[in-house]
Amino acid sequence: MEIAILGTGTVGRTLARALSGLGHQVQVGTRDVTVTQAREPAAYEGLSLLAYSDAAAGAELVINATAGTASMAALQAAGEQNLAGKTLLDVSNPLDFSGGFPPSLFVKDTDSLGEQIQRAFPEAHVVKTLNTMNAEVMVNPGLLATPTAVFLSGDHAGAKQQARTLLEGFGWEQIIDLGGITTARGVEMMLPMWLNLMSALGSATFNWAVVGGGDHG
Amino acid sequence: MEIAILGTGTVGRTLARALSGLGHQVQVGTRDVTVTQAREPAAYEGLSLLAYSDAAAGAELVINATAGTASMAALQAAGEQNLAGKTLLDVSNPLDFSGGFPPSLFVKDTDSLGEQIQRAFPEAHVVKTLNTMNAEVMVNPGLLATPTAVFLSGDHAGAKQQARTLLEGFGWEQIIDLGGITTARGVEMMLPMWLNLMSALGSATFNWAVVGGGDHG
Repeated sequence: MEIAILGTGTVGRTLARALSGLGHQVQVGTRDVTVTQAREPAAYEGLSLLAYSDAAAGAELVINATAGTASMAALQAAGEQNLAGKTLLDVSNPLDFSGGFPPSLFVKDTDSLGEQIQRAFPEAHVVKTLNTMNAEVMVNPGLLATPTAVFLSGDHAGAKQQARTLLEGFGWEQIIDLGGITTARGVEMMLPMWLNLMSALGSATFNWAVVGGGDHG
Repeated sequence: MEIAILGTGTVGRTLARALSGLGHQVQVGTRDVTVTQAREPAAYEGLSLLAYSDAAAGAELVINATAGTASMAALQAAGEQNLAGKTLLDVSNPLDFSGGFPPSLFVKDTDSLGEQIQRAFPEAHVVKTLNTMNAEVMVNPGLLATPTAVFLSGDHAGAKQQARTLLEGFGWEQIIDLGGITTARGVEMMLPMWLNLMSALGSATFNWAVVGGGDHG
């Protein structure tokens, strides 16, 4: 599949390498290719860097892997017409680090970044997913001791099916469809807890599993 | 141990019965004993119902199991002097159902109900715990297929140790100390996701496990 990944941070690069490794044609979108390349040339080795709009134009599926504060501008640069009718995986989180650590959430509770993106790009098929674990775990859930959960939130059934197939490619086993895009509120509000746990465990290599009835006690 | 449970809803009654079963002396606090008894007499069979202040006065440990919107008033009725120097387990959640379902959170992100309670009762040793699963699972984590997680947030090490011992009495195995009371923000903001999952799974009998590195894939 032709996939555009918007964002050149750790998440974007990790997803790009993993999806390339699975045989997809991956283009990585950035605001200014020359500036990005100059900043840290080694980080982008082997990746195809394009301007946001060029990356999105040729893609069948687009992944928003930019920082939450930069997502709306990146998607606008990608261009509404280049997102229309396509699955748009939204991996971002509405973290505001302007007050230091821990970050606060710049949208929450009665709205979410996933919903804001869906409202701004009504013809894109937004699926919120993969925002609740670190990049290494996103593409390699087998790193963890037992199977853990990843979530899908979105209004378009076909797009969620496409997301599910992609997640299965990474090895995800517990893929839970939460419902419509409004359920992005819940997964985005898990981030403060994720950060608490990272501090408590002293590691970012962890994830949640959802455990149902079955009586082990 | 002499334990006061504030709140006569499902959570309060379930905790009261379980703690009595473990041999503790349990008093259940309510606003008006006569009114509560009259409302649903069978629900309180075998429980010792007292006014909030009478329940708290005789207790070594107090549990706030009231609805989040009612918690501050219940604790004020219990009396600052009856909470001072005691462990106060806060099981409540800041859910606001005034706009229907799903509820919103009346405090979040940069503050939490746990912190509000600690600020209002500075001499109580507040430990936020057990707010991230349903009542049945709280007191019987062995109901689930595999061990799952419960969290501790609080500023007083001795109170957290007392909470841990009580949780072990219920059979909890994965008890994670998140740090100070500010980490209550994270666990309280998990509630929207818990509600999403309950809808997706069609059951309230589930919980999170935290899974670390170990390579199962």
